Amino acid sequence: MVNKYEKLYEGKAKQIFRTDNEENVIVHYKDDATAFNGEKKAQIQNKGVLNNQITSMIFEMLNKNGIKTHFIEKLNDRDQLCKRVEIVPLEVIVRNVAAGSMAKRLGLEEGFKLKTTVFELSYKDDSLGDPLINDYHAVGIGATTFEELNSIYEMTAKINELLKEFFKKQNIDLIDFKIEFGRLPNGEVVLADEISPDTCRFWDSTTGEKLDKDRFRRDMGNVEEAYVEILKRIQG
Amino acid sequence: MVNKYEKLYEGKAKQIFRTDNEENVIVHYKDDATAFNGEKKAQIQNKGVLNNQITSMIFEMLNKNGIKTHFIEKLNDRDQLCKRVEIVPLEVIVRNVAAGSMAKRLGLEEGFKLKTTVFELSYKDDSLGDPLINDYHAVGIGATTFEELNSIYEMTAKINELLKEFFKKQNIDLIDFKIEFGRLPNGEVVLADEISPDTCRFWDSTTGEKLDKDRFRRDMGNVEEAYVEILKRIQG
Ligand SMILES: Nc1ncnc2c1ncn2[C@@H]1O[C@H](COP(=O)(O)OP(=O)(O)OP(=O)(O)O)[C@@H](O)[C@H]1O
Ligand SMILES: Nc1ncnc2c1ncn2[C@@H]1O[C@H](COP(=O)(O)OP(=O)(O)OP(=O)(O)O)[C@@H](O)[C@H]1O
Ligand SMILES: [Mg+2]
Ligand SMILES: [Mg+2]
Repeated sequence: MVNKYEKLYEGKAKQIFRTDNEENVIVHYKDDATAFNGEKKAQIQNKGVLNNQITSMIFEMLNKNGIKTHFIEKLNDRDQLCKRVEIVPLEVIVRNVAAGSMAKRLGLEEGFKLKTTVFELSYKDDSLGDPLINDYHAVGIGATTFEELNSIYEMTAKINELLKEFFKKQNIDLIDFKIEFGRLPNGEVVLADEISPDTCRFWDSTTGEKLDKDRFRRDMGNVEEAYVEILKRIQG
Repeated sequence: MVNKYEKLYEGKAKQIFRTDNEENVIVHYKDDATAFNGEKKAQIQNKGVLNNQITSMIFEMLNKNGIKTHFIEKLNDRDQLCKRVEIVPLEVIVRNVAAGSMAKRLGLEEGFKLKTTVFELSYKDDSLGDPLINDYHAVGIGATTFEELNSIYEMTAKINELLKEFFKKQNIDLIDFKIEFGRLPNGEVVLADEISPDTCRFWDSTTGEKLDKDRFRRDMGNVEEAYVEILKRIQG
């Protein structure tokens, strides 16, 4: 039994609560959905329940495969117990195929086969619009160090390989995804936040159908159904 | 005597002409000035003459210090003889101090002391607005290879050290600058294009006065005078 105390932080999709143990937090998944830096807002029925379950399964798989994460256990439909971390103020984005903002920025068709896997950083600052930055910017402004970035990239490359394989088995292509890292009290960096259809692009390997938040961003309909489909497939 | 034949390319600040020798071109410096990706346009009196002379002196200094460049010799007031290269479609930007677009993007005050020298790439594509990109983007779209980028960064770091020292002797702080690289027929990468008050930020070390194109971008007046001042100082 874990007690849930006061809310420490409310984000767009999740809330963070204090627990009995100073070193842990409860991460609560809401149905709220936002896009384009908060400009577009709505609720997606059951999204919180679905993303909690999807993220929990993915983080368990990663934990088993030697990736250190904040995830301890799923507590109920919408709550996870996680290690409390100091979030590194960077979004780390991996792109296996060109899509979304990168395709637009570089003038590429969605689906363009890149000559190398692309790793991107954006600076987590809503007032600046989470701008794309590079390693030197991140270190130059003191958001991280080159040493910490090395660990982050090393973990990120492994996570990408594990996720690609995990989803390929379910006939899903992992096009791109965003992850966040956090620092434990001892300074060690671990994977934090979530991995879900909110933070990934998933395309059905056979039909190319989009099974992720792009259905919401682009008003394609059947948003909840796509999240349900992802959960069904990874439940096997 | 070098003959000038047909124009091969006309840019915003320079023209490129064919010569008798297929391996060389004449780079002709115009007085045209543009800013904000061509939105703001004007002529700066004598800019071509000044930038030709400033760039020539800087490239001679770099050549002497072991940096391979396209520069062969200054022919006259507005013309340089250079090796013809295939331009790598990247702008390589070095920032010793935060200013301009980077300060804006990261929410920093101009003059902010960065915790590391920042190297940036932008993709040379006017229709996309020369977007900021990272190494993975550059390789992912086939603009360069990781190997070529390594040489480029190695040369860029040396060029920064040489330029900082060169200008410091004239009581000028080199805040940031943009350079371009080109490929010789044998594939070797050399420094190309220009280095001038159009492509650098120069601040007087004592007064902080701006001695570069920001005077034009920001309608500060005394634009030609600033370019003349830079030339005077480096002529010693
Ligand atoms: N283990 C953790 N400990 C502390 N904070 C965490 C942990 N995992 C994730 N977070 C942070 O909690 C917040 C989760 O909320 P949510 O994802 O809704 O935020 P958001 O709307 O995306 O906003 P933000 O820009 O802050 O990420 C994020 O700021 C995330 O970085
Ligand atoms: N040695 C060289 N051989 C061939 N091209 C060169 C050489 N040095 C520079 N260039 C190219 O010649 C052009 C110089 O013109 P200018 O600087 O006016 O162009 P610009 O308006 O900046 O436009 P661009 O976006 O093409 O650089 C640039 O495209 C530059 O990359
Ligand atoms: Mg979030
Ligand atoms: Mg130019």
